[in-house]
Amino acid sequence: MTANAAERIQHEGLRAKIMSAEQAAEFVQNGMTVAISGFTGAGYPKALPTAIAERAKAAHARGEAFAIGMITGASTAPECDGVLAAANCVSFRNPFQSDPGIRNSINAGNIAYQDMHLSHVEQQMRQGFYGDFDMAIIEASGITADGKIIPAMGIGHCNEALKAAKKVIIEVNAAQNAKLEGMHDVAYDIGVPPHRQPIPITGPFDRIGSPYLECDLNKIVAVVLTSSGDRNSKFADPDDNSKRIAAQIIDFFSHEVKAGRLPKNLLPLQSGVGNVANAVLAGLLDAPFDDLTGYTEVLQDGMLDLIIAGKMKSASATALSFSPDALQRFNDNIEFLRDKIILRPMEYTNNPEVIRRLGIIGMNAMIEADIYGNVNSTHVMGTKMMNGIGGSGDFTRNAFFSFFVSPSVAKDGAISCIVPMVSHHDHTEHDVMFIVTEQGMADLRGKSPRQRAKLIINNCAHPEYRDQLNDYFNRAEKAGGLHTPHLLLEALSWHQRFVETGDMRIK
Amino acid sequence: MTANAAERIQHEGLRAKIMSAEQAAEFVQNGMTVAISGFTGAGYPKALPTAIAERAKAAHARGEAFAIGMITGASTAPECDGVLAAANCVSFRNPFQSDPGIRNSINAGNIAYQDMHLSHVEQQMRQGFYGDFDMAIIEASGITADGKIIPAMGIGHCNEALKAAKKVIIEVNAAQNAKLEGMHDVAYDIGVPPHRQPIPITGPFDRIGSPYLECDLNKIVAVVLTSSGDRNSKFADPDDNSKRIAAQIIDFFSHEVKAGRLPKNLLPLQSGVGNVANAVLAGLLDAPFDDLTGYTEVLQDGMLDLIIAGKMKSASATALSFSPDALQRFNDNIEFLRDKIILRPMEYTNNPEVIRRLGIIGMNAMIEADIYGNVNSTHVMGTKMMNGIGGSGDFTRNAFFSFFVSPSVAKDGAISCIVPMVSHHDHTEHDVMFIVTEQGMADLRGKSPRQRAKLIINNCAHPEYRDQLNDYFNRAEKAGGLHTPHLLLEALSWHQRFVETGDMRIK
Repeated sequence: MTANAAERIQHEGLRAKIMSAEQAAEFVQNGMTVAISGFTGAGYPKALPTAIAERAKAAHARGEAFAIGMITGASTAPECDGVLAAANCVSFRNPFQSDPGIRNSINAGNIAYQDMHLSHVEQQMRQGFYGDFDMAIIEASGITADGKIIPAMGIGHCNEALKAAKKVIIEVNAAQNAKLEGMHDVAYDIGVPPHRQPIPITGPFDRIGSPYLECDLNKIVAVVLTSSGDRNSKFADPDDNSKRIAAQIIDFFSHEVKAGRLPKNLLPLQSGVGNVANAVLAGLLDAPFDDLTGYTEVLQDGMLDLIIAGKMKSASATALSFSPDALQRFNDNIEFLRDKIILRPMEYTNNPEVIRRLGIIGMNAMIEADIYGNVNSTHVMGTKMMNGIGGSGDFTRNAFFSFFVSPSVAKDGAISCIVPMVSHHDHTEHDVMFIVTEQGMADLRGKSPRQRAKLIINNCAHPEYRDQLNDYFNRAEKAGGLHTPHLLLEALSWHQRFVETGDMRIK
Repeated sequence: MTANAAERIQHEGLRAKIMSAEQAAEFVQNGMTVAISGFTGAGYPKALPTAIAERAKAAHARGEAFAIGMITGASTAPECDGVLAAANCVSFRNPFQSDPGIRNSINAGNIAYQDMHLSHVEQQMRQGFYGDFDMAIIEASGITADGKIIPAMGIGHCNEALKAAKKVIIEVNAAQNAKLEGMHDVAYDIGVPPHRQPIPITGPFDRIGSPYLECDLNKIVAVVLTSSGDRNSKFADPDDNSKRIAAQIIDFFSHEVKAGRLPKNLLPLQSGVGNVANAVLAGLLDAPFDDLTGYTEVLQDGMLDLIIAGKMKSASATALSFSPDALQRFNDNIEFLRDKIILRPMEYTNNPEVIRRLGIIGMNAMIEADIYGNVNSTHVMGTKMMNGIGGSGDFTRNAFFSFFVSPSVAKDGAISCIVPMVSHHDHTEHDVMFIVTEQGMADLRGKSPRQRAKLIINNCAHPEYRDQLNDYFNRAEKAGGLHTPHLLLEALSWHQRFVETGDMRIK
């Protein structure tokens, strides 16, 4: 045992349970349902997945079955989802993923994947929707002398996983900053109806729990030491399109503040994962708003930089997912950031009760929107799963303002992000308030489908696609019209054309 | 002034404002945005709409424009939506309607209709999404000596309408039971972020407000006396299909109670509008569950009879919508019912915070579901608006269990209610837990799209459509498959076939 490990694991009894990942993986059996920590490339176990994958490969080589059902907080990384998918040992997976390896297995039909609202995960685990949890595998940044678990860069569903699982393996990652201790706020727990009480969060930075995860220590069968970083994917620098999208949203905020419909420091911001959403936050660095707050699911580079720059006074999230550079800034400024960032279980960050009460401004990326304001966040050309809906539905449905952002075209113009009908519906016309592309913004509030179609085509679609969209809409109106004009056999033909020719444009 | 009116309007100053509907209608001007009471055929004004319609017709005859924007709680009746649509004087309408006259105008594109979640209505009015409200026209069952307003059979958005509107007209309806006084619970109000507090409802029957609506009396420009009943549409008696649907849901409840995953008295029940949903409640009359509770949007015959039979101890709703027979039973038993039924503003009955906290069992009718578990509640053949999404989304998204029910076929088998892809998406695969037809139930929880398809086709589809559905699914799997197998050009062809031939069956 190294000095570092001794420092990180202050509980004597748990120190005695330190073993190698290979030894710990022996506790994981074929057919188990396993709750694994990890949220958007942060806080996932670094060693166990590879050890489990090796066990599975050996079993498969012997002609034996070996697969687990796997429920995480959200996405993990190549050394977790990736290695398990490669070993073909995942039977069931929810609620969100983004690793290319596991995505391919899902799309091949080899893994049964349930794409679900993240606010549903913990409560459905607790309510028994997934049966018994045999095992939880949880990354931590340390264990206190009295056996409390200091979370790492994400909490996700760890509070429920530790409660629900019959056995627990903890990975203590010495590469995580020891000063994370105290940033987390773990409230046990929302419970099961009919005995639930109001969640006492009335401001984004309210603390309602303890900084530690807790667990019946008798359930912990192994503690494994690791020392390696999180996924830390790099962001693209904001490009012109992203800057144009950001500028329009910021203009709108200014307009609403001026009209007295929005406080001067706006309302708590939520930003989805990805380059465009991140760029909108970067745009706020130079915007005339101060004392901003964040109540989001994943805190990324954009929000971190707003805090460091003194533009945002506090932010709440369930995970920290930084580029390598931003991680450096986070570690360099951790003393300053400790009382400005709070990490909660995902059932609190994504809870409809809190989101609606606080009046979040939700900003999420999309794959495509249609002319009536429906949004596809998950499927390419109607059939291929990308990552999942994540928390975008939790925030969008309950937001004060809900924005969906995307460049108007993709693949050098071969794909229009505005289509006659989305090929998969994740957010319906009832939930989407604003569509924003680099071309412009459509404010859909209070509009009928026909009014929305005109706004979205004229304001948001790429000029190269406007005639084609207007032609569809006009012919649909003439062919029968009604409340939501559509040509049923043509509604999804743009996607089919792309599948066949590689281009949505009619040549 | 009759003795009855004097009895109902105890405030001197407001008595002085009694006038005819025709006189009061003079306050309503072209271009006004008007909040009108009414929720599912209850509590709508009986006299003013006709008087406004006459004013509009006269204006149109003179070649003048006359139209109002109109926001209600939910649907009204022929003498409200119907007469206004017939006079062609509604420019904008939300959030829900069911009158054939206004539906036709909406589908003709003559009225801009916004179909929205009912939980969004009051907060978006308050947040300024619809601009200023020039007028509120509210039905009441009386006015107290100190000018408080006793609501009628529904509250809906009245609390917000009275606050938001610059001028107010009250219709006092002497045909409403005077003993309604005290059944309502009006809490002012959820407010605007960032200053919102938790809603202190932790049980379906918690009272948190006052029995009265309040209003700045200076804003009341007219009081109009009426004496006529609500819409009181008749229900169809439960047929065999409805009874089979009910039996399966009740069997499932028994199973969950036995497994310890559901309390013996279940969880608070929500039931959508309509014959099938009503039949499920009727089925509970003979089921082995006692001390049931209801937390729903509209209390209809089924729930009333459960209360009268002593099977349900209390129910919360925003409106009472009864058949003529049930209205008689309600009036006959009003002393018994007074402490068992509570009527709240719709922002409380439909609030995601409360629905999720209480763990509602949501049961809603649908137009169709697809093989992947998406549900269409609003559009016939993808283009024609029926009534709107109402509260089905508020309850479904936040429910402990979310059920969608429908007979497996309609129009003597010419329409399958299970289709390859729904022609309009109101509830996505992320929200729908159970599909139930008279053929069987599909429990979609924790299932991937392919697993759902097999369950829904085998358990729920009508036998006459199973081969056709399996054929679609199998060909879609072979053609490319991926996470959600679809044939993009064929996905909506069943609806097109019906439009062209009157039958979804391939002959």
